[in-house]
Amino acid sequence: MGSRFLLSELAGKIGARLQGPDAEVTGVAALDEAGPGQVTFLSNPQYARKARETKASAIIVKEAIPGAGCAFLLTPDPYFAFACAVEQFHPPVRLAAGVSAQASVHPDAVLGKEIHVGPFAVVSEGAVLGDRVTLYEGVRVGKRAILHAGCVIGSDGFGFAPTPQGYRKIPQVGTVEIGDDVEIGANTTIDRAALGVTRIGPGTKLDNLIQVGHNVQIGRDTVIAALVGIAGSCRIGNRVMIGGQSGLAGHLEVGDGVVLGAKSGVAVSLSADETRAWSGVPAMPHRTWLKMVTLLPRLPELFRRVMRLEGGNPGEGEE
Amino acid sequence: MGSRFLLSELAGKIGARLQGPDAEVTGVAALDEAGPGQVTFLSNPQYARKARETKASAIIVKEAIPGAGCAFLLTPDPYFAFACAVEQFHPPVRLAAGVSAQASVHPDAVLGKEIHVGPFAVVSEGAVLGDRVTLYEGVRVGKRAILHAGCVIGSDGFGFAPTPQGYRKIPQVGTVEIGDDVEIGANTTIDRAALGVTRIGPGTKLDNLIQVGHNVQIGRDTVIAALVGIAGSCRIGNRVMIGGQSGLAGHLEVGDGVVLGAKSGVAVSLSADETRAWSGVPAMPHRTWLKMVTLLPRLPELFRRVMRLEGGNPGEGEE
Amino acid sequence: MGSRFLLSELAGKIGARLQGPDAEVTGVAALDEAGPGQVTFLSNPQYARKARETKASAIIVKEAIPGAGCAFLLTPDPYFAFACAVEQFHPPVRLAAGVSAQASVHPDAVLGKEIHVGPFAVVSEGAVLGDRVTLYEGVRVGKRAILHAGCVIGSDGFGFAPTPQGYRKIPQVGTVEIGDDVEIGANTTIDRAALGVTRIGPGTKLDNLIQVGHNVQIGRDTVIAALVGIAGSCRIGNRVMIGGQSGLAGHLEVGDGVVLGAKSGVAVSLSADETRAWSGVPAMPHRTWLKMVTLLPRLPELFRRVMRLEGGNPGEGEE
Repeated sequence: MGSRFLLSELAGKIGARLQGPDAEVTGVAALDEAGPGQVTFLSNPQYARKARETKASAIIVKEAIPGAGCAFLLTPDPYFAFACAVEQFHPPVRLAAGVSAQASVHPDAVLGKEIHVGPFAVVSEGAVLGDRVTLYEGVRVGKRAILHAGCVIGSDGFGFAPTPQGYRKIPQVGTVEIGDDVEIGANTTIDRAALGVTRIGPGTKLDNLIQVGHNVQIGRDTVIAALVGIAGSCRIGNRVMIGGQSGLAGHLEVGDGVVLGAKSGVAVSLSADETRAWSGVPAMPHRTWLKMVTLLPRLPELFRRVMRLEGGNPGEGEE
Repeated sequence: MGSRFLLSELAGKIGARLQGPDAEVTGVAALDEAGPGQVTFLSNPQYARKARETKASAIIVKEAIPGAGCAFLLTPDPYFAFACAVEQFHPPVRLAAGVSAQASVHPDAVLGKEIHVGPFAVVSEGAVLGDRVTLYEGVRVGKRAILHAGCVIGSDGFGFAPTPQGYRKIPQVGTVEIGDDVEIGANTTIDRAALGVTRIGPGTKLDNLIQVGHNVQIGRDTVIAALVGIAGSCRIGNRVMIGGQSGLAGHLEVGDGVVLGAKSGVAVSLSADETRAWSGVPAMPHRTWLKMVTLLPRLPELFRRVMRLEGGNPGEGEE
Repeated sequence: MGSRFLLSELAGKIGARLQGPDAEVTGVAALDEAGPGQVTFLSNPQYARKARETKASAIIVKEAIPGAGCAFLLTPDPYFAFACAVEQFHPPVRLAAGVSAQASVHPDAVLGKEIHVGPFAVVSEGAVLGDRVTLYEGVRVGKRAILHAGCVIGSDGFGFAPTPQGYRKIPQVGTVEIGDDVEIGANTTIDRAALGVTRIGPGTKLDNLIQVGHNVQIGRDTVIAALVGIAGSCRIGNRVMIGGQSGLAGHLEVGDGVVLGAKSGVAVSLSADETRAWSGVPAMPHRTWLKMVTLLPRLPELFRRVMRLEGGNPGEGEE
């Protein structure tokens, strides 16, 4: 990497206007994590308070934020301009063949056939990579982790900014960290973070054909069955169990010890405080769900009974 | 390709009887699209009108159609016989290694490791193919399209004719066209058309682990989240958004601008006229769905209330 | 393989205590299937009767079972100790490159590019393996079977024993048998049995992105659409049809001729006796499901009607 720009220079490249002192910057980072020499962005005014506390050298933003101690790169569409900035620092990498000379693979790791290990990827002691596993650039795999055939770790997250000219790709320049003793099933896909890290905690087991979105954080000793989809930025706790074909919307938290039934759809954060077990679409306490689904096939009967109470005729089209 | 048969000769090979003038034929096509020198078929008598208008040299059909200006290949099972005819014109192709010498790959395309590009496939300027991407024979990839690792474009559609001896494979001899600026996620699969083209329109973005069936047509700037399944011959419009794990039954239309919630199941065609947003299984207007799911956990309570209205005892087993 | 141990020696390796006569053992097997020279285990006391009938040389078990005619390997956690025993007999195999010299591939099989065929795998006459197909060790593929690109046959089943130190992998040392004339879609995954065989019967057709768990048995001429998940040890009959995105919990039976609607969730065994067609989550007779889902969007109306019958005011928050 190693790109460096003056803020004034970067402003020109991303269509923004610099307000505040010029300075050299060397990279991009999220609002929470950016430090001196880095550029961040703010598109949601809700987070103005965070912007005041940032240590970044500059914020890409619509309007200057009173009280923030950094420079501003002003633009009508900060998210889009940030995407452009990310591209300046991370030009696309050509995929290298086989194991990159810049990757670090422990001599006691076991590598399958036709695997791809990108530059700056790290494969630790005792890790086992099945056939045709793809580890993109910078992905880290912990000790004794097992990755089955066909899984793809670190491909681009699904992030696009709508523009009048169609969707524009948001560069995905974070990475993925797979903890020690993790197992990942065949053809499962784990996306790299947009910025930062998508993280699978130690001891966690993922079955086949699972999708883990960008910036997801999964704790330790969590078990996830096949065909589950976890949208971007979810935080899943420790010792969570997720049944097959469940789905989680983005930016949710699932607390330690939660048990999620198969085919659940989670639209709000869940904890194990009220009850451990959740099921259904949208997810409700499992006991409630069980009672509900037992009655569902009797819904036509219920309609008939209500009609009878109303003095109506069950022939009137309830069924 | 390049096979040529007399209709009388083809009749023998597929177990049909020729009625009408003999002629040389060079290929197969759908009823709508067949021209002179081509053979088509009719298994659903509903389409007899279309058969009268066909420009095909011959129709494989159960009984001759009065008023049709072509020859007939008569057989008790036209769909099966058509499958046999397709095989005559398209003998199976052995997969070639790496990039076929008969493929056309633009010098400014970026190719990953261990990719397969079949004969007659076309990869355009600026396209990026991730590791282990498979492009089967004849697939076309547009400019600046990005295909992530492990995706499979152009494998056989899922088509089988039931016979007393078990299912018989319907040859899948169409192709796939991926438009400009399309992005396709890791391990996503897009089947080739049975006949004709499976088409992904320009600017459309597909996430990981999506299944697109044969002959599906997707418009431009449409966004589809992970683990969605789209059955054969669906037509999805422009600027549609489809939530994760949704499924669409075959032969449906989804109009421009429709927004489909996660985990929806679509069984009939939808448009954005009544409402843009749809959710649920089967899909209903999203507002209706929201009201409905809010009440679902209260179904046991409703049963108890109705029983009370009927003068019954809530202990009688409603729960 | 070929490992041999005295029971006394094995007891030391797996942390168990031998009670009964010492003997040489050469392998492990399930309670039903174990014969002389083999070790089995019992963790669920419900099956004590079966244990009395086993022909195994020894049972790994918590407490000796009166009336059983074999030796006991006593341990507080039999499932865990059995996992250790399995590892003694099946040390992990390094994946060989390409087609193993110990695999048996018929000269008339057609092999794609970058496939992997493990040792002791068998590919029969007329079988077609697409690009990047992975057949793990010992997998058998029948005559004229077609496996599309990216599918993974025989990767480890998803089996872990909880321990105070986190999950412990249960070794998966069975295999997979794919019958004659089977077709398996792109990126579909079929797990090897823990012990014994995961079996796909002749003539059965699987679409893309399907997950088949360990020890599943599927009959003949069954058709399964994309993105279906079948959990471990399910038994699916002959001529079954399963719609897309359906899911089956583990250890269920689905009888011959059952038709399962798309997006169904099956939690109990189903047969075609009561009705052939089933749908919904959990699955109910399809006719019942159709009536139910027609009424679902009218649930808010029903709540209002019941409130009116109760003399209430529909403004009181039912909606």
